[in-house]
Amino acid sequence: MADETDIEVERLEREGSGACLKEPLLKSRIKYTSQIAIVGANVCPIESLDYEIVENDLFKQDWRSRKKVEIYQYVFFKWALALLIGLCTGLVGFFNNIAVENIAGFKLLLTNNLMLKEKYFLAFIVYVSCNMVLAAAAAVLCAYIAPAAAGSGIPEVKAYLNGIDAHSILAPSTLFVKIFGSIFGVAAGFVVGKEGPMVHTGSCIASLLGQGGSRKYRLTWKWLRFFKNDRDRRDLITCGAAAGVAAAFRAPVGGVLFALEEAASWWRSALLWRTFFTTAVVAVVLRGFMGICKGGKCGLFGEGGLIMFDVTSTKAAYNAADLLAVIFLGIIGGILGSLYNFFVNKVLRIYSIINERGPLFKVILVLTISILTSCCSYGLPWLSQCTPCPPYLEDQCPTIGRCGNYKNFQCPPNQYNDLASLFFNTNDDAIRNLFSAGSEKEFHLSTLFVFFIAIYFLGIITYGIAVPSGLFIPVILAGASYGRLVGTLVGYFSDLDSGLFALLGAASFLGGTMRMTVSLCVILLELTNNLLMLPLMMLVLLISKTVADCFNKGVYDQILVLKGLPYMEAHAEPYMRNLIASDVVSGPLVTFSGIEKVGNILLALKITRHNGFPVIDEPPLSDAPELCGLVLRSHLLVLLKGKKFSEQRVMTGSQIMRKIKAHDFAKAGSGKGIKLEDLDITEAEMEMYVDLHPITNASPYTVVETMSLAKAAVLFRDLGLRHLLVVPKTPGRPPIVGILTRHDFMPEHVLGLYPHINLQSHK
Amino acid sequence: MADETDIEVERLEREGSGACLKEPLLKSRIKYTSQIAIVGANVCPIESLDYEIVENDLFKQDWRSRKKVEIYQYVFFKWALALLIGLCTGLVGFFNNIAVENIAGFKLLLTNNLMLKEKYFLAFIVYVSCNMVLAAAAAVLCAYIAPAAAGSGIPEVKAYLNGIDAHSILAPSTLFVKIFGSIFGVAAGFVVGKEGPMVHTGSCIASLLGQGGSRKYRLTWKWLRFFKNDRDRRDLITCGAAAGVAAAFRAPVGGVLFALEEAASWWRSALLWRTFFTTAVVAVVLRGFMGICKGGKCGLFGEGGLIMFDVTSTKAAYNAADLLAVIFLGIIGGILGSLYNFFVNKVLRIYSIINERGPLFKVILVLTISILTSCCSYGLPWLSQCTPCPPYLEDQCPTIGRCGNYKNFQCPPNQYNDLASLFFNTNDDAIRNLFSAGSEKEFHLSTLFVFFIAIYFLGIITYGIAVPSGLFIPVILAGASYGRLVGTLVGYFSDLDSGLFALLGAASFLGGTMRMTVSLCVILLELTNNLLMLPLMMLVLLISKTVADCFNKGVYDQILVLKGLPYMEAHAEPYMRNLIASDVVSGPLVTFSGIEKVGNILLALKITRHNGFPVIDEPPLSDAPELCGLVLRSHLLVLLKGKKFSEQRVMTGSQIMRKIKAHDFAKAGSGKGIKLEDLDITEAEMEMYVDLHPITNASPYTVVETMSLAKAAVLFRDLGLRHLLVVPKTPGRPPIVGILTRHDFMPEHVLGLYPHINLQSHK
Repeated sequence: MADETDIEVERLEREGSGACLKEPLLKSRIKYTSQIAIVGANVCPIESLDYEIVENDLFKQDWRSRKKVEIYQYVFFKWALALLIGLCTGLVGFFNNIAVENIAGFKLLLTNNLMLKEKYFLAFIVYVSCNMVLAAAAAVLCAYIAPAAAGSGIPEVKAYLNGIDAHSILAPSTLFVKIFGSIFGVAAGFVVGKEGPMVHTGSCIASLLGQGGSRKYRLTWKWLRFFKNDRDRRDLITCGAAAGVAAAFRAPVGGVLFALEEAASWWRSALLWRTFFTTAVVAVVLRGFMGICKGGKCGLFGEGGLIMFDVTSTKAAYNAADLLAVIFLGIIGGILGSLYNFFVNKVLRIYSIINERGPLFKVILVLTISILTSCCSYGLPWLSQCTPCPPYLEDQCPTIGRCGNYKNFQCPPNQYNDLASLFFNTNDDAIRNLFSAGSEKEFHLSTLFVFFIAIYFLGIITYGIAVPSGLFIPVILAGASYGRLVGTLVGYFSDLDSGLFALLGAASFLGGTMRMTVSLCVILLELTNNLLMLPLMMLVLLISKTVADCFNKGVYDQILVLKGLPYMEAHAEPYMRNLIASDVVSGPLVTFSGIEKVGNILLALKITRHNGFPVIDEPPLSDAPELCGLVLRSHLLVLLKGKKFSEQRVMTGSQIMRKIKAHDFAKAGSGKGIKLEDLDITEAEMEMYVDLHPITNASPYTVVETMSLAKAAVLFRDLGLRHLLVVPKTPGRPPIVGILTRHDFMPEHVLGLYPHINLQSHK
Repeated sequence: MADETDIEVERLEREGSGACLKEPLLKSRIKYTSQIAIVGANVCPIESLDYEIVENDLFKQDWRSRKKVEIYQYVFFKWALALLIGLCTGLVGFFNNIAVENIAGFKLLLTNNLMLKEKYFLAFIVYVSCNMVLAAAAAVLCAYIAPAAAGSGIPEVKAYLNGIDAHSILAPSTLFVKIFGSIFGVAAGFVVGKEGPMVHTGSCIASLLGQGGSRKYRLTWKWLRFFKNDRDRRDLITCGAAAGVAAAFRAPVGGVLFALEEAASWWRSALLWRTFFTTAVVAVVLRGFMGICKGGKCGLFGEGGLIMFDVTSTKAAYNAADLLAVIFLGIIGGILGSLYNFFVNKVLRIYSIINERGPLFKVILVLTISILTSCCSYGLPWLSQCTPCPPYLEDQCPTIGRCGNYKNFQCPPNQYNDLASLFFNTNDDAIRNLFSAGSEKEFHLSTLFVFFIAIYFLGIITYGIAVPSGLFIPVILAGASYGRLVGTLVGYFSDLDSGLFALLGAASFLGGTMRMTVSLCVILLELTNNLLMLPLMMLVLLISKTVADCFNKGVYDQILVLKGLPYMEAHAEPYMRNLIASDVVSGPLVTFSGIEKVGNILLALKITRHNGFPVIDEPPLSDAPELCGLVLRSHLLVLLKGKKFSEQRVMTGSQIMRKIKAHDFAKAGSGKGIKLEDLDITEAEMEMYVDLHPITNASPYTVVETMSLAKAAVLFRDLGLRHLLVVPKTPGRPPIVGILTRHDFMPEHVLGLYPHINLQSHK
């Protein structure tokens, strides 16, 4: 039974080397896969989440005595929490945008003014130092306060919703750093997005609201006790993830679909509705605040802060030749997208070696990338020649303020630098420029080519530094410039607008890296507000995903593997059909008797790190040894803390149930609950007995030992279990063979035990 | 063990009273619920579907020997089938529209021409008789050829995807009648839609393609053998349902979401993608054909045949007062929607009594409703006064052709009858008129009121007659007129366009009757092509669904109950937590020995209608009796047909496996496979033995008898099982207690056994 972590980890724990393990140890644990590296220096033990309802006597008593009004309360608070999540996420999303637009805007204006005075070198110095200060702020927050806030956050949320509780992934400090780190990171001009971090932020907000305040500061909401279990928290965090997407893209339907397609591992129809409600609240909040900000009341935040690329003006009539061009675009986009994943993977491995060395190295890496990015965005536009403004544009060219398509940069008046319009701008504005329709001649072919190459590789080397960094924007930027490049190239025989090609190029890149279809399609439609593009968009997404799937996995799945998170896939691996449950169950198994000696329980809790122990009734309690159920470590700790012991081996369940109530066993937030060290058991008490029946889950899911491993995996995954009991087939043996946990189903574990089984199936 | 049907049904079967049971019998079976009535005269036994992979020795042999190329074949054909489903459904959807537009258009033109000549009575006679002829055609098809084609079809598809195979619900005859019956029904001017039937049509097409042609006509595709199981068929039919919505509304994303939210009970991420592909194909096909039809090449089919209400011209700026009006609209819409469901339910009960009497009565009922509808749509416009055409419209008013907002009807030239514009039109055009923006003054308040009342009740009395009849259009029509009515009323203090109010009214009605949210929202957005409406639409849908949920269930769920289909809800009922698995398991249990006498098997197959039999290995095959697995009726029939018997009680499994291959056991289409009567076993063979091991599923899912019923129900539902084995807790008893099937989890069954349990929980 390899419960959560294996024996080597346990030994270390007992030796008291601290809560977090160093990487090399974990590496040896998963030595059978050469592909696995770990990102981040300190790897903490991963807890599994438990979505099963623990139907013990206490629960049943509580269930029977539950009043109708309590059920209404539960439903009310469920919706109230969804509303709160929507409100908070909407608010944070809006704040995020205002902050980024103002900081980045101020920075660009400052530099621009110096350039107008032809102080080019000073402008460069100011630009680089602004960026470095912002980058350093983000990096320090990330490296010293909450390392878990680095990166996109979507893989971690995905893992959480799959049942993996990585350390402090949804902690308040992570939320704080994610919000401010993301603001500083985006404002620092990195090729990163704020969309992935928004998803993580939404999830953190949901988790925090679901925890019911902080016990430390005595801010607890009593009525939240209903939500103190993994099932309800999972639902809340799903809503939070959807709200994050909705806030980032102003795409409420896209948010729901994103949560459904990419984030969540379990889904119910009821959840669809609640998620939809949350994202609707986000949409209303954003709309309301945007209304307030109209007319420059929010500083430099105009109407365009939240990315929304209106391309309704584009006509979407297309013929067979256009269709061919689009198919070509999709195929190449898929290849480039999977190549993007490949490079990101390689870069992450290199960065993980640097990041491991300590927080200072993390900050230095961030600063290095910041300087490189600044040099690119200030230096590369000098390559481009100045173009005279088209006469019909009048006031719009060259742009005087921060926004706009036609940056003056180093050019004389009435000319513009098209490369600067892309580079020397916020990422959102660059995307808007690339998507803009009816401006075929705006960008030279060479401009697009330079921008595409630079952004493609800048995006790759930026992901993995210690800054909250979304992947959506880099991929959309690279895809849009690629699409516009193709659009300009095929402009001779295609009537489609090159702005439209940019949109389709972005879709192809997104499909090629992230491998989502429906949610991306809806998000892009909501972003661009043009439903007539739907068939073309669907086509491109399907093609690019199909092509990219031939080469590697989606970028989020790759990051999951890199982080060593034991993600359960929805389907069983083919070779699992050739194995049975008992093939992978490993010992030693620690079981308790129905009425167990306190000393034995304490010992078992000390020497193992198992989270579930089978309880077996033995004579004289029953005629023969029989499986009573499963008891959880956290419940045992609560019971021992309560000290309801008896001198003799007698049933004291009813007494216990009078003293301890179901809500005492409510699951605390990750890393909170009672710890073994908190117990204070005397020597005399060690010799006493405790009745485990009230807290024993009498209805654990079981499989017979001869059950095919594939079917056991489906059962485990579909029901969201943490422990699956394996019972013997033949009578006359101990009533339990072992326990299957998440790790027993991991390909690394199974292939470690049976290295050749993968070759056997499907020769 | 109440497998599929209970003992009374079995007795009747043995008495040979035919394949289909009369209603009263089934009624007695479910006597414990007074709420249940059955729609339709002949109720056939319902088969459950089995989504479990039968992992017997034959399967494992086949699995191991499966070559890589076969897996690629499987994937290729999976996508090829999705493509085919999309193509066919798109084609049928297009054909359906052309046919309806041309037939209805011809009818309306004919009547119109007579009216222009002021031959009003003749026009009425022509109009009524046209409608009656069309109605009779639809009714005759429905009543005599395929009774299963009546109604919407969505509840049946929903039931199929939940695991219930009602008789001939996806048969070729049903498909035929559904297509043509729907065309005639809609063209006959009934207040019915073609959208629900399109969903059913899509599912029939998918089912037919998945069957691999017809064995009768020797049109079988060998490579389709991979798809001869319930799992793959379920996936295909999910794609078909999505394609149906996509074809009906030209809403590909809405189609996917509809399949996800309303139709499917099980969902995988991989399926999302395939469904999306199917609907994309539908979108492309429709777009292609619409292109061909441009410029009147398809008779009277203009551009507007497929409903698509372009309201992009509307501005979507709103203030707090508008929001209040919209909330009010949503609340009343929810109440009216749930009232609609209530009336539909009552009417269905009355109609079921009439329809039971025979096909002739069905046709008479259809004709009665047809006359009533014709009288309304020709008669009621006379109530309205003629309105002079607004001068700025010039050519558009009054309308000369079939389409257009301003029907001349009985009015003098240059005047129009606003009620006729709604009544004397196809339903699609009426909706388009109601949604039209910038035409505040077009409809009088009284006109809208009369139309709303008439359509609301016509819709209610039309559903349930023997004609394929969708519910979307009646509900949208009633909702849109209600919304425009409210919009006109609040026009004094709201700036929102009344066309927009019509759209929101339609949303509120849809939310109130069908209780979908995300999919309706997306469908309406795709229909109206205006994404800026999103927040308002979400608000209205959420409010109306919430309000309506206080009163009753969604209309499709109500119809499911009325039809007596044992639909498994996703969640377990609260009282199930107070029961354990053995509480509801009922005998008698028939088990087989691992090597069983042929005669015993035949007898068991004859006297029971069980579909699964536990196989128990007894000494000398094992030390003690132990559960070997589960064998299916259909597999037993194939094995007996193969006649691989032996004289002695010996293991002949390997011989059998050399002779019979896994694909011989592929599941035939519903009602096809080998029947008991097809077997030809001699007296001597009756005394011989057959080894059941090769066909025994050695990994059936099991629960211990003390497992809480709620958790067993979750297991059963989440894994899509047909049989769930209950094993004893204590050793020394027979190794199996019973089998749980779908019926054992039905509230009727459980509450029949424990009538007071529902009162116990949640006092």
